[in-house]
Amino acid sequence: MDSFLIGLIGSGIGPSLSPPLHEREAVHHGLPYVYRLLDTDRMGGDVGELIRTARRFGYDGLNVTHPCKQDVIPHLDELSPDARMLGAVNTVVFDGDRTIGHNTDWTGFAESFARGLPDAPARRIVQLGAGGAGAAVAHALLTMGADRITVVDSEPARARTLAGELTARFGDGRARPAPAAELPRLLERADGLVHATPTGMARHPGMPLPAGLLHSGLWVADIVYRPLETELLRQARAAGCRTLDGGGMVVFQAVHAFRLFTGREPDAERMLAHLTDLIAV
Amino acid sequence: MDSFLIGLIGSGIGPSLSPPLHEREAVHHGLPYVYRLLDTDRMGGDVGELIRTARRFGYDGLNVTHPCKQDVIPHLDELSPDARMLGAVNTVVFDGDRTIGHNTDWTGFAESFARGLPDAPARRIVQLGAGGAGAAVAHALLTMGADRITVVDSEPARARTLAGELTARFGDGRARPAPAAELPRLLERADGLVHATPTGMARHPGMPLPAGLLHSGLWVADIVYRPLETELLRQARAAGCRTLDGGGMVVFQAVHAFRLFTGREPDAERMLAHLTDLIAV
Repeated sequence: MDSFLIGLIGSGIGPSLSPPLHEREAVHHGLPYVYRLLDTDRMGGDVGELIRTARRFGYDGLNVTHPCKQDVIPHLDELSPDARMLGAVNTVVFDGDRTIGHNTDWTGFAESFARGLPDAPARRIVQLGAGGAGAAVAHALLTMGADRITVVDSEPARARTLAGELTARFGDGRARPAPAAELPRLLERADGLVHATPTGMARHPGMPLPAGLLHSGLWVADIVYRPLETELLRQARAAGCRTLDGGGMVVFQAVHAFRLFTGREPDAERMLAHLTDLIAV
Repeated sequence: MDSFLIGLIGSGIGPSLSPPLHEREAVHHGLPYVYRLLDTDRMGGDVGELIRTARRFGYDGLNVTHPCKQDVIPHLDELSPDARMLGAVNTVVFDGDRTIGHNTDWTGFAESFARGLPDAPARRIVQLGAGGAGAAVAHALLTMGADRITVVDSEPARARTLAGELTARFGDGRARPAPAAELPRLLERADGLVHATPTGMARHPGMPLPAGLLHSGLWVADIVYRPLETELLRQARAAGCRTLDGGGMVVFQAVHAFRLFTGREPDAERMLAHLTDLIAV
């Protein structure tokens, strides 16, 4: 019988919902599967040592989160093409003697978006947030055929860097940075707004932009998932927008990682329902 | 949801049946449970480091087998009374900050014996083999009320040592060593024969004593379990003896360890059936 031991490497991951999400899905498959948190705050931060020792102690794979998604790369034997392109790894599979890095953050957002906002127009998209999650989300949108993304970040240099990476990867004109002051004009003409900053999380309540900028011609996607209904999504629905909450990205990155670890096909709808239960607690 | 990560520390443990036995039983309970082999031949032999690192990487407990059952003791915070008495640990539970050593080898044999040879007379018992398994088995028999055990080993010093430990623990006259030459006379007057040497295993085929010494007034218990039907048990049945194979000890030590690790009550009959399947493969 196959069995699977998976870890999550990152900082401050105590509240992660990945252990119950993965473990309960595996129970439905009758698969022995344990998911452990390997918090760098507790274990020490040498990612290379964590990977080697996890493997020596019988781990089959790892998820990787902030702040280790880049640091992990020099310790891997191989990268999937998309992990290489993004320069970020959130999933490591121990395959025989080799360690292979993947990125299921962008595929997770892509599947969530296709499922939750089917046929959403995507000529012009405004994205708030140019951090790691923002990089994955913008990559997903441009891969799925968005014409152009304008990136706004409270640190203008981050927005410039991400926009530069995206144009290098997808071509001139597909991405550009903009200051927050341009938001009124940008949103007036946009098809959609993607929110990829922490604002709206339980510990960062509030709105990432003035509610008055929302209008019924926009779809609004949030990657915050605790709570699933953020102030932004509530205001967006009140303004008549189609909306997408952050739960789908969490679930589909887990769905894709579970598939890479086990070769089994998880039940995404069941995992979505489980996530909703977990967040409601 | 609770989940359990358990390891086995020992040398040459590749063929161990503990991983599937534990993992499949846990699947029946809907429990995430992974059991990994931490072979000292591969991992290096510093038992203290193995215990510390296993714990750091999310293990909840360990089984311990040859040659580590004594070496593990200085690295533990606490011993159960029976592990202390036997001076051997086969189960380590990580309980909060503490590591607690237990011995389910002797309780495993005791339960197997009570189940498989109920009401067996036990005034005089002859035991072949004074190694680690022999120590657990003799402890079980004397604890369950056997009057006297005579220990025979191909290394007479081992037989003397074990008999000395047993009399120190259970009282004068409860155990004594004897040379193999005395077997004919001893078995003539014995109620039972316990076999605790490797003879009869697939790699050590044959009989541990002349078949002619078996008679219908004896019960015969073997601790060899691969195969379950040893030449000794076959000959013993042919001679009219009640017999007990080695599968029960394997299963009940695992039953008792599973209970210590999880607090759940495993289904021993289901695990026995599973062991039989595993051995038949």
